[in-house]
Amino acid sequence: MLNFDFYAPARILFGKGEEKRIGELLKPHAAKVLLHYGGASLKKSGLYDTVVTSLTESGIAFVELGGVKPNPRLSLVHEGIALCKKEGVDLILASGGGSVIDSAKAIAMGVYYGGDIWEVYEKGAAVEKALPVATILTIPAAGSESSGDTVITNEEKQLKLGYGSPRLRPLLSIMNPELFFTLPKNQLANGVADMMSHVFERYFTNTTHTDLTDGLCEVTLKTLMKNALLAGGDMQNYDAWAELGFAGTVAHNGLVGMGRAQDWACHGMEHELSAIYDVAHGAGLAVLTPGWMQYVYKDNINMFVQFAVTVMGVEGSYRDPGAIVLEGIDRLRGFFGRLGLPATLADLGIGGDRLEEMAKKATGAAFSRERPLGGLKKLHWQDVLAIYTLVK
Amino acid sequence: MLNFDFYAPARILFGKGEEKRIGELLKPHAAKVLLHYGGASLKKSGLYDTVVTSLTESGIAFVELGGVKPNPRLSLVHEGIALCKKEGVDLILASGGGSVIDSAKAIAMGVYYGGDIWEVYEKGAAVEKALPVATILTIPAAGSESSGDTVITNEEKQLKLGYGSPRLRPLLSIMNPELFFTLPKNQLANGVADMMSHVFERYFTNTTHTDLTDGLCEVTLKTLMKNALLAGGDMQNYDAWAELGFAGTVAHNGLVGMGRAQDWACHGMEHELSAIYDVAHGAGLAVLTPGWMQYVYKDNINMFVQFAVTVMGVEGSYRDPGAIVLEGIDRLRGFFGRLGLPATLADLGIGGDRLEEMAKKATGAAFSRERPLGGLKKLHWQDVLAIYTLVK
Repeated sequence: MLNFDFYAPARILFGKGEEKRIGELLKPHAAKVLLHYGGASLKKSGLYDTVVTSLTESGIAFVELGGVKPNPRLSLVHEGIALCKKEGVDLILASGGGSVIDSAKAIAMGVYYGGDIWEVYEKGAAVEKALPVATILTIPAAGSESSGDTVITNEEKQLKLGYGSPRLRPLLSIMNPELFFTLPKNQLANGVADMMSHVFERYFTNTTHTDLTDGLCEVTLKTLMKNALLAGGDMQNYDAWAELGFAGTVAHNGLVGMGRAQDWACHGMEHELSAIYDVAHGAGLAVLTPGWMQYVYKDNINMFVQFAVTVMGVEGSYRDPGAIVLEGIDRLRGFFGRLGLPATLADLGIGGDRLEEMAKKATGAAFSRERPLGGLKKLHWQDVLAIYTLVK
Repeated sequence: MLNFDFYAPARILFGKGEEKRIGELLKPHAAKVLLHYGGASLKKSGLYDTVVTSLTESGIAFVELGGVKPNPRLSLVHEGIALCKKEGVDLILASGGGSVIDSAKAIAMGVYYGGDIWEVYEKGAAVEKALPVATILTIPAAGSESSGDTVITNEEKQLKLGYGSPRLRPLLSIMNPELFFTLPKNQLANGVADMMSHVFERYFTNTTHTDLTDGLCEVTLKTLMKNALLAGGDMQNYDAWAELGFAGTVAHNGLVGMGRAQDWACHGMEHELSAIYDVAHGAGLAVLTPGWMQYVYKDNINMFVQFAVTVMGVEGSYRDPGAIVLEGIDRLRGFFGRLGLPATLADLGIGGDRLEEMAKKATGAAFSRERPLGGLKKLHWQDVLAIYTLVK
C-alpha cells in the first residue's frame, strides 16, 4: 500500500424526498444561488418546481442558467461566470448529472479566477478559491457529486480536458433514486459503464498489499453489474437504482483507490473520442475498456486473473491464467452487450481516419510534450493507436 | 435501503513518515494547541519528540496534558477543559488511541459548553460548538480518528456513556502503520475485536436491498481477520498493519452502515463490563459477540447464513441453515481464540454476582427509563441477562 491522503467531505443526503430539503440545507450557506441545469427534463419531471418552491420557502434568492449539454461546453461556463459576478451569487446549485456538476465547478472557480478559466484546465494552475457547489443528482454516473474533478470541452479547440482540486468537492449532494426512474435506457447503460470505469481505473494496479481496496473495488463492481441488469429490466426499480447511485459515489469519491497507483488510460483515450466525435463518455469507455484489457493484461496477469475470478466469476484451471483472463474480458464484453452498449468504434460511428491524430492528442505527442497514459502499463501514442485499432 | 445522511469530512493522511508533517498541516488552523496523550510510551517511542519538533518548526505553541487511561475518565476531561480555557488553546491534538481521541473530543466540547460536560453524555444535549480536534493514531481500533463519537467513563458514578455529533469529527488524522509496531499483542487482539464489532453492529440488520454495504462490510471483516493473523505472527509487518489501520477507519467512518438499520447491542452490553470491571473494550466485545449471535440468529437466519458463508467461509447444505450459522459462530470464536482473546466473562475475571445489575443498567431499566438494546432483535434486560449468562 502506498501513502495516501483521503479527503471526501461532501455530505451525501440519500433517499426518497431528500430534494425537498434543499432550501433548508442551503440556508446556512447562501443568500443567493445560481440554479444550473441542462434541458427541459428538469421542468418536465417536476424537479424544477420542487427546487424553486424549497428555495423560495427558505428565503433563498436565485438566478438560473440552463442549457448544459453532455460534454459541457466552455462557452456556457463563461456565460455562468459572468452571470454569477453580475448577480452576486454565493453558491451554485447544480441539478442534473455529471455534465451539469462539472460545468458548475468550472463556473465556481471562474468567479474568482483572474484570467480565462480554460487556462486552469490547460495548464493545471492551482485554484485558491471557488464558490461552494451543491448538487441534486438526476443521473448517477460521473461521481462528480462527491469528487473534486471537472471535465470541460473547449468547442473551438476540439479539446476535452479535466481538472481536479479538493476545493471543488461539493458541499453537499442530494441523491434520490426516484429521480432516475425517467432516464432513457441508454443513459443507464452509459452511466454504469462510466461508474465501472471509475473503479477499473483504480483497481488495475501494480501496487501490492491492497487487500481492503481490492475488495472494495470488487464489491462495487459486482453491485453495479447486478443492479444494472435489474434496473435495465425495470426502470422503476427503486432498490436497484439506490444501489447504482450509492455505488456510483463510492466508485469516485476516492476511497477505493487509496494507497494504489492508479491507471486512467481508458479515460484518457476516451476523452479524445468525446472531444472530436461527441460520443457519450460511458459508451466510449465500454468500447475501449475490454480492448485495453486485452492489450495490457500480460503485464500483470495475476491482477487480471483476480478480476476474472472475483468479479466476473470465471472458474477454470489456474495453470492456464491467460484463458481465465480472456474469459473474464469476454464476459465483460457480454455484460456491456446485454446493456445495449456498443462494442466497436464503428458502432459509435467513428471511422478509422483520425485514430492516429487522437492517439497523439491523448498522449500529448501532438503537442510535443508526450506524457504516456496509464499506470499498470505506460502507453505511448503507438500503444494507444494499437488499442484504438483493436476495437475499430 | 433506508434514506441516509453520509458525512465523513475527516482528512486521513496515511503512511510512513506522515506524522512529521503535523506542524505544517495544523499551521492554517491553530496558533496554540493542546497536546493530549496517554502515558510514557509516547515519549519512549520518539513520537513525542517528532511532534514537538514539527510543531515548533511551524511556530505553533502548545501546552500538554498526558495521563489518559483506557476507558478515559471524566476527571481528566475536566482538567483538560480548564487548561484549554486558561491557555487559550484553539485546537486539540490527540496523540494515541481511541481513549485519547475520545477524551480530546470531550474537552473540545467542554471548552464551549456552559455546564458540566457530563450532562451532554447523560442527557444527549446538542452541542453547538467544539474546538477542532486533530489526531495522530498510535492504536488502530476505536475508529475515533474519523468518527464523531466519544465515550467517557464517569468514575464516581461507575457509568460509561457515549455521545456523537458531526461537529466532533476530527479535522484530520494521521495514520502511520509503523507507529503500531511496538504495541503489545493483546492490544492488537483487542483492537481487531473492536474494529470487527464496529462492522458487525452495522452489518447485522433486518434492512433488505443492501448489496453494496453488505459487500463493504464483508470485505472489511475479511481484511481484518486475514491481517490480524499476519500482524500477530510478525508485529513489524507494515503491510498487515496498513490493512488493519485503514480497515479500522472504514469500519467506523459511517460508510459501511449507510442505509441500514444498525444494531449496537454488543457495544451497549460491553460498556457495562468496562464501566464496572474496567476490562478492555475489545476483549469484552470478543466475549459477548458470539454469545449475542447465538442468542439472536434465529430472528434473521438468512442474515447469519450470509455471514457464515461469505465471511467465515462455511460450506454446507443450505437445507440446514442453522448448522451453517453455528459453524460460522464457532469459527469466529476460534478466530478470537487464535488471537488470544478471552471466551467467557470468567476469562475476564468477571463473576456472576452483578450480571442482573449490568443488564438493567445497559437497558436503562435500572433508571426506570427502559430503552431496549439492539436493532436486529430488541433486547430487554432479561435478554441481556440471558446473553451475559450464556457467556459466563
